[in-house]
Amino acid sequence: MSQHRNSHVILKQRADGLPAPELFELVEGDAPVPGDGEVLINNVYVTADPGMKGWISKARNYASVETGTTMHSFSVGVVVESNHPDVQEGEVVAANTGWAEYVVADPNLPTFRKVDPADAPLSTALGILGINGFTAYFGLLAVGQPKAGDTVLVSTAAGAVGSAVGQIAKIKGCRTIGIAGGAEKAALCTDVFGFDDVIDYKAVDDLDAAIRQACPDGIDVYYDNVGGATLDIVLGQVNLHGRVVICGTASTDSWIPQPTGLRPERNLLVNRIRMEGFLTFDYAHRYGEALADLSEWVRDGKIQYREDIVDGLENAGAALAGLYEGRNMGRQLIRVRPDPFL
Amino acid sequence: MSQHRNSHVILKQRADGLPAPELFELVEGDAPVPGDGEVLINNVYVTADPGMKGWISKARNYASVETGTTMHSFSVGVVVESNHPDVQEGEVVAANTGWAEYVVADPNLPTFRKVDPADAPLSTALGILGINGFTAYFGLLAVGQPKAGDTVLVSTAAGAVGSAVGQIAKIKGCRTIGIAGGAEKAALCTDVFGFDDVIDYKAVDDLDAAIRQACPDGIDVYYDNVGGATLDIVLGQVNLHGRVVICGTASTDSWIPQPTGLRPERNLLVNRIRMEGFLTFDYAHRYGEALADLSEWVRDGKIQYREDIVDGLENAGAALAGLYEGRNMGRQLIRVRPDPFL
Repeated sequence: MSQHRNSHVILKQRADGLPAPELFELVEGDAPVPGDGEVLINNVYVTADPGMKGWISKARNYASVETGTTMHSFSVGVVVESNHPDVQEGEVVAANTGWAEYVVADPNLPTFRKVDPADAPLSTALGILGINGFTAYFGLLAVGQPKAGDTVLVSTAAGAVGSAVGQIAKIKGCRTIGIAGGAEKAALCTDVFGFDDVIDYKAVDDLDAAIRQACPDGIDVYYDNVGGATLDIVLGQVNLHGRVVICGTASTDSWIPQPTGLRPERNLLVNRIRMEGFLTFDYAHRYGEALADLSEWVRDGKIQYREDIVDGLENAGAALAGLYEGRNMGRQLIRVRPDPFL
Repeated sequence: MSQHRNSHVILKQRADGLPAPELFELVEGDAPVPGDGEVLINNVYVTADPGMKGWISKARNYASVETGTTMHSFSVGVVVESNHPDVQEGEVVAANTGWAEYVVADPNLPTFRKVDPADAPLSTALGILGINGFTAYFGLLAVGQPKAGDTVLVSTAAGAVGSAVGQIAKIKGCRTIGIAGGAEKAALCTDVFGFDDVIDYKAVDDLDAAIRQACPDGIDVYYDNVGGATLDIVLGQVNLHGRVVICGTASTDSWIPQPTGLRPERNLLVNRIRMEGFLTFDYAHRYGEALADLSEWVRDGKIQYREDIVDGLENAGAALAGLYEGRNMGRQLIRVRPDPFL
């Protein structure tokens, strides 16, 4: 058993508002030692995710990270030591670990899975063929339940999840409308991700009117990654028996104190709308199903994706902060070390 | 074919806020004449319903009543003329008609149904064995989907719908907590309707703390008839995968302009809560199922109900206004003429 030196990023301080690089610190130490049934992974890519805002917020949630500990993240890497009979040294695995070179993981967790590096670039295991693809897939299909002909509206439509939602909805025969911020992202939506129409919210004075114009038959499914005032506006345009998938709240910087907005209950009642919070992990037992469909769609060119990769764990905090300024163009990944399969 | 004189109540003016007697006028005219396939009904009871606030509001909804026309309501009465082969003169029927002595109805509508006056008092066809019972039944069972052991919280718990919700939830093995206004209604909840606990919201300083105390294990199903600040508070106490049934918005007097409240999306997301608007009419094709269960439960003494009956169509507007002041004790009915079966 060799002992590795380990760079990892710890959370120094919980956030009042948006994540900032100063909240994190890159530290050196010994690599952790896998216990019975565990494996040691040498990470190649880790992620910066919009949901991390909630994990490090002073307003605690289902995935709060404690200060002084390694920041949680999704990761893909190579097993360098295994105490589990079903996992061999040298195998590539995706898991929920953290911003670290070396991490210990439990292969029995539903979020742990093997990745075949011959199938697709390793990085996709953290994006379209991983957490983003699964989030789009189950949030849209299991919660949003679109029918052919439905109008599906998606916020952060140029993002890793939003762009997949739009393309899956299109495969299912829906009319797809994206909301994105800025001309470059708006162009991605229509030109690369095949949305039928897009609204650049930074370029319109009246978002309500712009959505109404883009969705003349109303909205059957709203896949929402932002919440806030956009959600308030959309709720007034959702059709009878429409579905609102609450997947993220990116537009709200802080939940302390809990902000206010337009009351939703009358819209829900009059149109019998179902508004439902959604977390991908609840579907971990069905990831295989999503992976099979998504792999086929990617292989057939029916789903396009974009990645935005920065080098080095020392840049992870800045990459995370950049998400909330809309600086990334595609799935934000941090390359921990050179990809051994490229 | 005899021609009847007809007293009926018309809507003179749409409401900015709460219904008031002055918005209505009792007028005299000729009874309407049933067309092909229609029947003429001589009403015995009509209703005053919390939802009528929305029907007569300037903010239009699914059931808006036009000014100058007869106010809509639920009704039970006796058929006095029939142009429909399946309905005979003298039969008792419940239908969606209006505040009038004589009304025409279409027996082919799913909301039209025959009532056996030997089964139960006629008035129950507008309450526990009618719209209120059906609303409680489908809203709780089809939308709320309680499991045995769940904590079910109900607002307006002493009301015609809320009291039925609590008792059905109890039959299904749930722990039931009511919210009601005033000592008399709170006592009804525990002593007559069998709630495990009740919160008199008029008697507590801190509703959040009072609900937390009454629901130490959190809330699995919230059956909401009021919306507003109570809904905001409850959303912070709903458990993982909890359900919120939006059945009414009685606490909000006016929706113009749309009022504000605490943003719900983070609570929905963190606990993957489903919040869904519900309208009984969507289940009209399944009323028979509800009637069978409810009739049995009433017969077996498992469901208690209360009625509050005023005499004369001239008092309908005041009875409606009284609902929003909490003046009624039980299902608010208006007796149009003496009940021929009593």
